[in-house]
Formats: sequence, C-alpha cells, structure tokens
Amino acid sequence: MTRQNHRYTLAARPVGLPKPTDFTYDTQPVPEPADGEIVVKVRYLSLDPAMRGWMNDAKSYVKPIGIGEVMRAAGIGEVVESKHARYKPGDTVGGLLNIQEYAVVKADHVTPIDPSHGPLPKMLSVLGYPGLTAYFGLFDVGKPVAGQTVVVSGAAGAVGSVVGQLAKIHGCRAVGIAGGADKCKLLTELGFDVAIDYKAGDLKSALRAACPQGIDVYFDNVGGDILDLALTQLAMRARIVICGAISQYNNTTPVKGPANYLSLLVNRATMAGMVIMDYTAQFPEAIAAMSGWIAEGKLQSREHIVRGLETFPETLNMLFRGENHGKLILEV
Amino acid sequence: MTRQNHRYTLAARPVGLPKPTDFTYDTQPVPEPADGEIVVKVRYLSLDPAMRGWMNDAKSYVKPIGIGEVMRAAGIGEVVESKHARYKPGDTVGGLLNIQEYAVVKADHVTPIDPSHGPLPKMLSVLGYPGLTAYFGLFDVGKPVAGQTVVVSGAAGAVGSVVGQLAKIHGCRAVGIAGGADKCKLLTELGFDVAIDYKAGDLKSALRAACPQGIDVYFDNVGGDILDLALTQLAMRARIVICGAISQYNNTTPVKGPANYLSLLVNRATMAGMVIMDYTAQFPEAIAAMSGWIAEGKLQSREHIVRGLETFPETLNMLFRGENHGKLILEV
Repeated sequence: MTRQNHRYTLAARPVGLPKPTDFTYDTQPVPEPADGEIVVKVRYLSLDPAMRGWMNDAKSYVKPIGIGEVMRAAGIGEVVESKHARYKPGDTVGGLLNIQEYAVVKADHVTPIDPSHGPLPKMLSVLGYPGLTAYFGLFDVGKPVAGQTVVVSGAAGAVGSVVGQLAKIHGCRAVGIAGGADKCKLLTELGFDVAIDYKAGDLKSALRAACPQGIDVYFDNVGGDILDLALTQLAMRARIVICGAISQYNNTTPVKGPANYLSLLVNRATMAGMVIMDYTAQFPEAIAAMSGWIAEGKLQSREHIVRGLETFPETLNMLFRGENHGKLILEV
Repeated sequence: MTRQNHRYTLAARPVGLPKPTDFTYDTQPVPEPADGEIVVKVRYLSLDPAMRGWMNDAKSYVKPIGIGEVMRAAGIGEVVESKHARYKPGDTVGGLLNIQEYAVVKADHVTPIDPSHGPLPKMLSVLGYPGLTAYFGLFDVGKPVAGQTVVVSGAAGAVGSVVGQLAKIHGCRAVGIAGGADKCKLLTELGFDVAIDYKAGDLKSALRAACPQGIDVYFDNVGGDILDLALTQLAMRARIVICGAISQYNNTTPVKGPANYLSLLVNRATMAGMVIMDYTAQFPEAIAAMSGWIAEGKLQSREHIVRGLETFPETLNMLFRGENHGKLILEV
C-alpha cells in the first residue's frame, strides 16, 4: 500500500502575520525514492522565526519557498526506506525535512543522529541550529571577554536562552530581555544575572541599572525599539550581533532601522550579522563543548512541544506572539 | 597695547541648521598666557561636519561646547608669545585653536608644524584630521583587499575624496557618490573609477551598475537614504565604515535609522564606527605614507578656502548645504 503524506504547502505569500489561508494542507502519495534517496518518517519539526523570512519573495541567505512548495523546516525523523548504502530503516536522521509526515530526500542532505545522545527534541534545540547559532554568534561574532556584560534580547527563546547560559559559562555577566514574568522566571532559573521584562515598563532605566558599565556584547534577536534602546547603553568597543529581528518580520510597513546607529561611531562599536550555515565545518566542536556542559549541568534547554502536524499554522504564530517558552517544536 | 581677540562663541544650541543668532561675535582682550601656555595668532581654521554634533547637549565622543564658550575648531597658526620652552614666536603650530583670532593654549595641547612640508591648508586637509580619518577608517576599519570595490559617500568632501584615492592606491575599484556634476567632475579628476551624482536620478540603478560584484567596503559620511541604498548592494562579508552622517546632523526629527540593516545578516557584513582620536599614536606613519603619495602625484587634495573670520556662520553652513568642493577652510 502506498504511504500517504500529509503536508503543508505555501499557498500565498503572507502579508503581516501568516494566516491559515496562506497554507494548503493536503495529502499526497509518498513518491518512490530514487537511487541515493531515503524516505524519512518525520517525528519532530523545528519552528523558527527565520521561516517567516523564507516565505517572502526577497533576496536573502536562502532562496524563498516557492508557492506550492512544502513549507521548509528543519526536522528529525526515522528512515523507513533507503536507496543509499549509508542508511537503513530505523536510523535516525536530521535535516530539512519540511512540514510534512514523510520526507523523500537525498541521503547527502541529512545527517545521522545518535538517539543515545539524548532526547531528540534537544537535537533541534540546544544541540541543533538554535544552540549552534547561540554558540557561534556569541563566541565568534560577539567575542565576549570574561567579566564583560552580555545582553541578549528574545532571551527566553531557543537561541537567547542558550546565549545567556554560554555567557555565564564564559565568565560574563548575563542580562536577558524577555516579555512577561513567566519568561523572566525562566531566565532566573537558567542562571541569568538579571532578567528584564520589557513589558513591565521603563526598559531604558532597567537596562541602565542592569549594565552600570554599559553593554559589551548585545546579541539581538528582536530588532525594533529594543535594539534602539540597547544602542544607547553601549560600552566602548561594544559588539552587536545581529541574529534576527522577530519584531520586524511581520511588518506591513518598512522595517524600523536603528535610529541610534550613530552610537556605533561614538562608542567605536561594531554591528555584525551572522548566518549559522557558515559554520557547518565547526559544528562538531560546538556540539562536543555544549554536550559536555549539558552533562555537567551547566547548560539547560527548554523545549516547548506542540503535538499535531495539522496545528502548524497556529503553532507557528506562537513565535510571533511571544507565546512559546523555550524552543518551539512541532511533534508530528 | 593689549591684543584684541575677535571670536565666535556659542550663544544657543541650534535646532536644525545653525542660524547666525546661535552664535555671538565679540571682541575680548587676549589674556596673558600663564606658565606653560602660548599665544597663537590663528591663520586657518578647519570647518567640519562634526562641529554640528559638538553644539548639541548630547553624550558623544567629546563633551559638548558649552553655551558662551568659543566655538571649537581645529586650526593652524603662528606663535606670537610663548611661556613654554618648546615654542618661540614665529613657530607654526596646529591644534584646537577654535573660531577666534588669537588662541591662548597650553603648549602640550598643540603640535609643531613644519611649514616647509607644504601649504598650511593641506595640514588641515589631506595631512590633517580629514586625511587621517580617511586613512584609518579605510585601512583599519574597512580593510579593503586589492581588487575589491570601495564605495564612499560624500566623496567630494575632505574625507571622501581621500578615501577614494587611497582605495585606488591600494588597488581597489573606487566608486564615489556626490551631489552635482561639478563634484562628480572633481572625482573623475582625482581618479575615481565611477562618480555617481545622487541628485541626477536613480541612485540605486547607478550604484548597481557601478558595483556589479556588490560593495565590499562602504565608507559612509552621509547616513540617511544613501546608507540605506548602499545596504541593498553589499557583497558578502562587506564592511561598512560609519564615519559620519551629515544628512542627519541638522534633523529636527529623529535620525533615520538604516531600515535595511538586516542586510548585515544576509551578507554576513559588519558596520563599525570610528573616531580618529583613537589613532593618534599612529598618525606619524599615516602622514609619512600620505606625504609620499602626494610627492609621487598619486594623492591630491582640494581645499575650499573662504576668507574672513566674520563669515563663520554662513561659511559653516556651506558644509550642510553641500556647497563646498573639497576641504572647507576658513582663512582668518
């Protein structure tokens, strides 16, 4: 009997926050794998802010998702059929499996995963792209020095929560900005020195009080007003890591540029972007380091798991509404 | 007979473009120099965009000019009286002499100038702060590699005109953006590969045509819309040098932040600020290098000299109206 694939394709380019009608949910027979391909039964899918950018028809670091194409997403699953010598049914693999039940992919496009290394959702979280983004963004771009102050926005998210913990491991002061008391409680549990609730009022005063020597590294996941405020509190020779700008992804008006960018001049500071795909050759070293810290209890991760492929459109928007606590994962 | 000092003090903090009433022109007796001080008869004063920022009551890399204080400006003059062993009447010195006829300054706060090295206005231009800003901004922050494309805005100005020529000396392609046909003609005379007149129409298309491989180094003197356009044309791993933002200095509305800053992420690019005072220890090497290139005919400079201390308020505004061709200098 032919396997049936439930999937979400992109029906229309969203304007603002994605609507259910921007996607089509349908069922298609799973095609036969060609030589070199494998069929993967998808178990967990990573929902990331970057997905919003992939839906736009704009030049970016990857090509846009085409209309009618399955929604792009990283995931983990089990090989159920293989036409490549490297994999056999029962193996676990990770890669771009997309928002569907079965992925037929080239074996070269996935990586093997050893399930004995820990729960699979961690492989999409602290040991996956978000954790790796935190690791290389902080250490390679932010270049923190022990004793310095690291501030991260979106601090309760998949990337931000790891940034703060890595800063602490590195001997820095870690200040997290997040929305709401629950998220700030999480930051405190994760060992951040200060958790600032940007919804609670005067963010500027709170940030100044939390960083009496100024901000040495600002790791930005949100853009908008919070980036602009952080620019007013830089220490000399500060480094700003531009990882994302979730506050701007669903804009229907132009992106709000950082009006205080001339603070870069006053403070001889640097603002730099990064894309995690540039670091693939160094992933093993980062995963080894972070696995060690997890084993020592120094690095924790929270996953926010929602069950049901069919919930995808509404679950995705939890990201943009700030409703997830930790890495948002769809369990298929 | 006591010497009389004609001078401009700051009367009010300007809102928008400085008005004549923002300054007071008065005459005061020149005070007796204390031990360690010298009296300098000012000959040339450098008028720079940065002066506009010094007039604001805002945190910056130097303290604001106080109300009632003489307008701050770099200059060159002749020692007429000395209470310091290093200087004698007739010596030429440079430093912050301010908008006045006679400066009484600590000898430690000025540097000796050898007039045999060339015309004095060059010491405020290509061999002064503007040239040094171009040198360290381009080489230390921009880090151009031979064969790459360097774009500079405000290219006919004191800094920009040197940036483009240094880029050519370094083996790069030099593209200058300036306002008006006359300025673009100057850029061509200085050896720029392409001169783009931003007043002539479609800057985006012109920039794209001039930089088919994208912009590797963008040296920004202007901010605003031109910075935003440059961000759309970056090559991978581009470096943006934030030297100034003349388009924004007289804003009465908030500074326009670069809405396209997420291009830093897409292109793994860097935006960094610089302040020339950080490089004082390296000035001699830069001046030696640039003097050599001037002697070889590879590096030219244009000075736009206006006579008369009393013209200061209107001459200063030539900068903000884009009316100067080359380094703007007030001859006292």
